[in-house]
Amino acid sequence: MTPLRILVTGGIFDKRYDAAGGTLGFGESHVPSIVERARLAGPVCVQVIMLIDSLEMLDTHRRQVLDACRAAPEESVVVVHGTDTMVETGAMLGNAALPKTIVLTGAMVPYSVEDSDASFNLGAAVAFARSLPHGVWVAMNGVAHPWSDVRKNRSAGIFESLG
Amino acid sequence: MTPLRILVTGGIFDKRYDAAGGTLGFGESHVPSIVERARLAGPVCVQVIMLIDSLEMLDTHRRQVLDACRAAPEESVVVVHGTDTMVETGAMLGNAALPKTIVLTGAMVPYSVEDSDASFNLGAAVAFARSLPHGVWVAMNGVAHPWSDVRKNRSAGIFESLG
Amino acid sequence: MTPLRILVTGGIFDKRYDAAGGTLGFGESHVPSIVERARLAGPVCVQVIMLIDSLEMLDTHRRQVLDACRAAPEESVVVVHGTDTMVETGAMLGNAALPKTIVLTGAMVPYSVEDSDASFNLGAAVAFARSLPHGVWVAMNGVAHPWSDVRKNRSAGIFESLG
Amino acid sequence: MTPLRILVTGGIFDKRYDAAGGTLGFGESHVPSIVERARLAGPVCVQVIMLIDSLEMLDTHRRQVLDACRAAPEESVVVVHGTDTMVETGAMLGNAALPKTIVLTGAMVPYSVEDSDASFNLGAAVAFARSLPHGVWVAMNGVAHPWSDVRKNRSAGIFESLG
Repeated sequence: MTPLRILVTGGIFDKRYDAAGGTLGFGESHVPSIVERARLAGPVCVQVIMLIDSLEMLDTHRRQVLDACRAAPEESVVVVHGTDTMVETGAMLGNAALPKTIVLTGAMVPYSVEDSDASFNLGAAVAFARSLPHGVWVAMNGVAHPWSDVRKNRSAGIFESLG
Repeated sequence: MTPLRILVTGGIFDKRYDAAGGTLGFGESHVPSIVERARLAGPVCVQVIMLIDSLEMLDTHRRQVLDACRAAPEESVVVVHGTDTMVETGAMLGNAALPKTIVLTGAMVPYSVEDSDASFNLGAAVAFARSLPHGVWVAMNGVAHPWSDVRKNRSAGIFESLG
Repeated sequence: MTPLRILVTGGIFDKRYDAAGGTLGFGESHVPSIVERARLAGPVCVQVIMLIDSLEMLDTHRRQVLDACRAAPEESVVVVHGTDTMVETGAMLGNAALPKTIVLTGAMVPYSVEDSDASFNLGAAVAFARSLPHGVWVAMNGVAHPWSDVRKNRSAGIFESLG
Repeated sequence: MTPLRILVTGGIFDKRYDAAGGTLGFGESHVPSIVERARLAGPVCVQVIMLIDSLEMLDTHRRQVLDACRAAPEESVVVVHGTDTMVETGAMLGNAALPKTIVLTGAMVPYSVEDSDASFNLGAAVAFARSLPHGVWVAMNGVAHPWSDVRKNRSAGIFESLG
């Protein structure tokens, strides 16, 4: 069984409603409970690096993600990330050319909200991380795009090839 | 984008609570709404063949699944199936040796019930169907097992290698 | 603020899906978490007496419910109960003519299943227990019926007057 | 069976996540589906007056609510309202001294978000509207406060007496 590491950085995937503020914010990550419910097989390690909106990610944050990918003993790595700058982080990880399969994913609707795509996307990312060759991939909408050929189409709410 | 077909046969994945009978039964499949929420990319066709408990599956039912796999114009096929006889259907499909990537999946907890693994499993199955070589696979717990090397471990509630 | 006691006896309200058995059974009661989410005001005590299907309730079980109502220091009591024999328990409690407002409620769809009526019903029962005169009431479908004038209409899935 | 009217004005109760904007906004009201799930008994009419944040409510909006209460043929009226200015609307309705039982309610967490109090609160409001004497009430946290003796305690996230 391929050992797997899931790095959590935040993004819409993990946002929760904060009744006091009337806004969406961060509490604990939902990833550990999704992993538990799916009874994920094999050695799986969930590592929460940060819980922030990806629009607030600075280069220092991206370097933390890169460092965590490099330090991971596993060859299969999933990165849960906000969708707004997932492509930028993918580019930084891609340029590092680590001998690993790194799959970025996120969600358009928070896990804590009805009709979320979070669980589906995490399932797809785990599968791609265990089946695709080394490289950096962005997995959304049930498809894995190479990091160098993907963009977020904001109006359609999907990820697509540069085409 | 790899065209994809999702064949629905029922199983725990799609069971719903029936208030009149106080039991779990079948209504409409949830697969189309999961596909819509995930905004699945590429040509995707959802085909409901039957909605039955896999313990009630006869050879005639399995042949219907095989016929649907053979008739599908797509090379990537996901079969949503009850977990109790998923391995038997996998064997029949595997022996047919179609030039396709066929991935069986299901759920331990219905989609309509809290803490379900259905969305995660469908996401993983879609990803495996688009990334693994031709053959028949059973995708549960975030892992794809070859059809000839998998069993359901009832007491642990997981699928595992015969090994 | 009227002090309130919520007695939990089980029923469909509290059933959970048991993945090992593939059936609906009992785990922990959901009532404490509903109470917490609603931030219920005033002194509120949740007391789990039993967690059983109301079709399995014997006279000894009903006497336990009656004893708990009698022993409760609060005048306002909600009893969460299976719908199938809610009327029978209501009759036993009604005949005891305690100087309390006792409101029985339950659910047609378990709290743990999509589209449940459990939270709505508990909210209505709490409100009726704090606003109706002494007596025993069955609160379902947003209405409080006196215990001596109510039956479950199985085909319609509702409670109604004998009238 | 007491005929009942539910007036919908918006508020957190009915907010939904808007994936395009990454914010909470309004779509269709959830009240009709909650009413359907609870199989609400008796003549029940759901009337959506507006769907706005109660912080954006002007006097003209409140007069619309008052007009709708006055025009309603039913004596029992529930008003689903944002929590931030529920007390102000309650005061305007209270000063009108209509010969009706009017119960304002809302939610601290949207219906569409996990761990919502919306269904519980609506159940309680319906019950209070059918059991309390004429007057204007604010029903939150399982308690009905007279409109002239209630405030929102923002830091605690509850409604309480002026005490």
